[in-house]
Amino acid sequence: MSTALVILAAGKGTRMNSDLPKVLHEIAGAPMLAHAITSGLTLDPSRLVVVAGHGAEAVTKAAEETCPLAQIVLQEEQKGTAHAVEQARSVLEGFDGDVIVLYGDTPFIRPETLEAMREARARHDVVVLGFEAADPARYGRLVMDGDRLDRIVEFKDASDEERSITLCNSGLLCAPGPMLFELLSAVGNDNAAGEYYLPDVVALANARGLSSGVVTCDEAETLGVNSRAELARAEALFQARARADAMENGVTLLAPETVYFAFDTFIGGDTVIEPNVVFGPGVTVENGARIRAFSHLEGCHVSRGGVIGPYARLRPGAELAEDVKIGNFVEVKEARLDRGAKVNHLSYIGDAVIGEATNIGAGTITCNYDGVFKHQTRIGARAFIGSNTMLVAPVSVGDDAMTGSGSVITSDVEPGALAIGRAKQVNKPGFARKLFEMLKSKKARQAKEAE
Amino acid sequence: MSTALVILAAGKGTRMNSDLPKVLHEIAGAPMLAHAITSGLTLDPSRLVVVAGHGAEAVTKAAEETCPLAQIVLQEEQKGTAHAVEQARSVLEGFDGDVIVLYGDTPFIRPETLEAMREARARHDVVVLGFEAADPARYGRLVMDGDRLDRIVEFKDASDEERSITLCNSGLLCAPGPMLFELLSAVGNDNAAGEYYLPDVVALANARGLSSGVVTCDEAETLGVNSRAELARAEALFQARARADAMENGVTLLAPETVYFAFDTFIGGDTVIEPNVVFGPGVTVENGARIRAFSHLEGCHVSRGGVIGPYARLRPGAELAEDVKIGNFVEVKEARLDRGAKVNHLSYIGDAVIGEATNIGAGTITCNYDGVFKHQTRIGARAFIGSNTMLVAPVSVGDDAMTGSGSVITSDVEPGALAIGRAKQVNKPGFARKLFEMLKSKKARQAKEAE
Amino acid sequence: MSTALVILAAGKGTRMNSDLPKVLHEIAGAPMLAHAITSGLTLDPSRLVVVAGHGAEAVTKAAEETCPLAQIVLQEEQKGTAHAVEQARSVLEGFDGDVIVLYGDTPFIRPETLEAMREARARHDVVVLGFEAADPARYGRLVMDGDRLDRIVEFKDASDEERSITLCNSGLLCAPGPMLFELLSAVGNDNAAGEYYLPDVVALANARGLSSGVVTCDEAETLGVNSRAELARAEALFQARARADAMENGVTLLAPETVYFAFDTFIGGDTVIEPNVVFGPGVTVENGARIRAFSHLEGCHVSRGGVIGPYARLRPGAELAEDVKIGNFVEVKEARLDRGAKVNHLSYIGDAVIGEATNIGAGTITCNYDGVFKHQTRIGARAFIGSNTMLVAPVSVGDDAMTGSGSVITSDVEPGALAIGRAKQVNKPGFARKLFEMLKSKKARQAKEAE
Repeated sequence: MSTALVILAAGKGTRMNSDLPKVLHEIAGAPMLAHAITSGLTLDPSRLVVVAGHGAEAVTKAAEETCPLAQIVLQEEQKGTAHAVEQARSVLEGFDGDVIVLYGDTPFIRPETLEAMREARARHDVVVLGFEAADPARYGRLVMDGDRLDRIVEFKDASDEERSITLCNSGLLCAPGPMLFELLSAVGNDNAAGEYYLPDVVALANARGLSSGVVTCDEAETLGVNSRAELARAEALFQARARADAMENGVTLLAPETVYFAFDTFIGGDTVIEPNVVFGPGVTVENGARIRAFSHLEGCHVSRGGVIGPYARLRPGAELAEDVKIGNFVEVKEARLDRGAKVNHLSYIGDAVIGEATNIGAGTITCNYDGVFKHQTRIGARAFIGSNTMLVAPVSVGDDAMTGSGSVITSDVEPGALAIGRAKQVNKPGFARKLFEMLKSKKARQAKEAE
Repeated sequence: MSTALVILAAGKGTRMNSDLPKVLHEIAGAPMLAHAITSGLTLDPSRLVVVAGHGAEAVTKAAEETCPLAQIVLQEEQKGTAHAVEQARSVLEGFDGDVIVLYGDTPFIRPETLEAMREARARHDVVVLGFEAADPARYGRLVMDGDRLDRIVEFKDASDEERSITLCNSGLLCAPGPMLFELLSAVGNDNAAGEYYLPDVVALANARGLSSGVVTCDEAETLGVNSRAELARAEALFQARARADAMENGVTLLAPETVYFAFDTFIGGDTVIEPNVVFGPGVTVENGARIRAFSHLEGCHVSRGGVIGPYARLRPGAELAEDVKIGNFVEVKEARLDRGAKVNHLSYIGDAVIGEATNIGAGTITCNYDGVFKHQTRIGARAFIGSNTMLVAPVSVGDDAMTGSGSVITSDVEPGALAIGRAKQVNKPGFARKLFEMLKSKKARQAKEAE
Repeated sequence: MSTALVILAAGKGTRMNSDLPKVLHEIAGAPMLAHAITSGLTLDPSRLVVVAGHGAEAVTKAAEETCPLAQIVLQEEQKGTAHAVEQARSVLEGFDGDVIVLYGDTPFIRPETLEAMREARARHDVVVLGFEAADPARYGRLVMDGDRLDRIVEFKDASDEERSITLCNSGLLCAPGPMLFELLSAVGNDNAAGEYYLPDVVALANARGLSSGVVTCDEAETLGVNSRAELARAEALFQARARADAMENGVTLLAPETVYFAFDTFIGGDTVIEPNVVFGPGVTVENGARIRAFSHLEGCHVSRGGVIGPYARLRPGAELAEDVKIGNFVEVKEARLDRGAKVNHLSYIGDAVIGEATNIGAGTITCNYDGVFKHQTRIGARAFIGSNTMLVAPVSVGDDAMTGSGSVITSDVEPGALAIGRAKQVNKPGFARKLFEMLKSKKARQAKEAE
């Protein structure tokens, strides 16, 4: 049986107080919508429909980046969840598999849960995802009759007895496509808000003699985000899980609460991560590396035995081989460093290739930008780049070569050569003392005049 | 009716274990005393008296910085709160409005609460600020008789029944000036400590047939600070509120618990603040900026579209126009950067003006200090400053000009010109290889000799 | 009476999921084993035996680093705690004092607790360390008979009544050496795991008419570490205590939860520590210093009035006299800075001596490494090192001397002299404008061709 996902992503999220559509606010470096889509894709659906509305252009772009085959439909006015799903009718015309409705602002739904919903369709026509709420508050209640879902009661319509139910409605639902759209046609908007509500399909299904059932998940999976404070809580929840997983996998986090992972960070076993490390998207760290305090990594690869930081910034395209060492106040971008290379202090390495065991002195800069174009610097193996060398790209330095500290290297250096560009030092005896005296007496004069 | 504030700030704060007077310990970048004064000033008082004692000189300075019209009186010996207020008698001679007594180590009192105390004076002669304590512990209890305050009982003198009262005394009090000082004259020191206690004025007032009443506030407002641990808790409370407020106002905090605000930080909506950002006093950030991880900002202004950090330090006087980008390991101080200017890496920009769309290369330094004087650097629009340019101020670089990387610029560069100061690169074939061999054989020799 | 310690450190720690032996995982910068040894050494024991097994070589090295006189014995197979202690029999042959058995993965045992166990030997032959467990879970229970320990019951063998006991076995034990080893000979392995359990000595002792007793400690002291998550919790516990102690001692921590101490950090009173500061091992900070945000200190000394950071990195051997200022993006290593010296921006100072009141300009680098050897830089008092000066060591700069910014200093500078090495600046009118035009038109051409 093929599956289609319909992901509702049209809401403005008024309480976010933002110009950005709600589902594009990020958790762990990816939009909430991307989390929902990624989870859904594990079902290998034959169709994926995103219902966009507010900020539809940006939402479309984000959806297509995560899933190029996503179909986007537009909900011009927000008239309820049933109305939102209704917008997918035309693109799902003729689709006769199961439809699962999920939400772009509910990023934590696990693949296993979606799979359980799909499997429960063997037992029921309509499957609703519920959860046992620690504090049911104003959630809709699921009223069961044995293993069948009798009805969904909104909090405000619920009797005292119904309010005592703790099994609540998550909003997610699975049903055969044709049946779902037929039921949707019958949903009305005779309520205070004049909106069309998706949960109404349960009552309609039961009235037609169909069977409705419930699958439950952990309450945390159903966490929705409606304000920046809730976004921060969702981020915190993600981070707490990511930290626990990392430790479980044999990573030492000296201060887990200060390490921030992205949605796709991969860290190998026996790596030690010191306090205050931030991982952006696209980072892999192999086993036995050490990421020192105050480091920031994005889109990079650190191999076994690498030692990064403190205060190291690895940007996208930094590819570090075994035992590479990147020290403090060093930025690396679009650069491949071979085994055992070292950049220990105060350097910028961008658009570069650096050979095995090469040592880059403090204050070295690859001058990769001429104001319009970017150019590459190539350095061989076992080279020694003196402190404060400017490598004006495009330029190359051969194996076993050396540059004198303070040199501006504009032409290639052959293997084994020493390149140096440096004005001769001149000492002027007594000059400093005289200069200081002059400056100080000027200051004294000024102070006197100011009186 | 005019109002006078009397702020008690004489205590040593023995448990702070500090040479600094207690009320000068800071929360969110401002002394506790300044928080109390600032809150009091919202009442637009006609008089503000600070009672200083320990560290009176420093306390006076801090009080006058926050409120230049503050009058300072000295409590030479600390003989109780009534004695402290008594010191204000002479400077309030002839003042016939209401006096509110508050505390320099109680920094969270809200203006609304002070206003409520003043308004309650319409109903009572003496108004005491109370709070419902979650754990009343050893606080003084407020014994009510209907809406009148019958008496204040110290914990140690309280009966079991009185100890079961949870309405406690904050110590703040409001009364007409002449009445307050007349009552103070009658306060005795017949107690174990031999001190004069301000709460005694309530019993004295009631004995004279005057009416005492109570206004209540949230317990958190009355939080006093007596140790560094309590100071840290007060700071944490401030930060928790500031973070919640920021999110409420549409700011995204990726990891709220790692962002530290100052008392006066202003952040516009849809700004994203990454983990580990510290704001010192005097920062404003306009809407839609991004403050990246590990940044530190003080006394600066970031405009719309600005991207700051990671690892950027903005110091006082950094004024950044729209879309300015300040990258990693960059320090900016007393500098104005026009729209779209970029300083991406490892630079120090101090005492400078930088024009629109100008790009400052990595490792650039404004050499603004000659050992005695500071000088200014002026750079025009659309200029391109090559990596590692030293700009020896005073110096200017014109619009559309360029400097060669590694140049020391000591004289002005006209618009459109290229300035370069660089020794010619010389390559010495084979020299590096020979030098390495020499050094390595020397090392081997030394190792051999050491055996 | 002399005392011998037997520290069990043979376990693999399977749940750590690590190649590193469990007891070598670190808390606050020192292996757990070192914490246990250090605590034990306060008893001034005449003998200290470490039972190693997994990773014995590394464990031996760590033990000897903490206590050079430690004797290491090997437990080839892990056959239970009694079997582990048994391995110490031969090296303690003839020792007739008390033996205390403790654990390399229980790092928080306090000296006072060990002392109390030793003292309790006056009243009992065998002394077991117990604790009142908040949640006794699956701990062994201590069944008392008056003040005598009747027996230790493993959870799985315990009756319901015994399971209701909350006094639990920590595993630590004290007994006279000869008696302990005699009892160990009688311990059997007739149990499901086929292991020899140390608690069995209690039943054996009682059966022989000897007396067993219990000393109790706080549950937190007995915290053992079996997974990285527990390691992180132990680290958090250490840090919480260290922060509370620092505040108690008069240190201001603006955000205590973001400051990380090492096991041996010493901070003097009235020092202020801003958010996000990490202390590695071997740091002392005198009174009244300020450690600004995002600083990282290891093996260094900061004197009174020092101001460090933000973003300062002090590495081992940084010795700073009074009122030294180290600013942002500055690294200092193996360097002595005299009173009032300043290194404010973007510098690397390694293997150096810097005199009183000397000012080091932004971007200065001590070029201390020639690829094989390290060399020293010496700078006198009141010198002024211009921005971006390269000091190619070995080199010295005299008192009151000055270097021009951008100079490479390769030979000594006498006192009062100005040293300068700088190519003459040349301005080429119109060149920049032409270059930009050329580059831009090239780009436009490329863009066109790409169409």
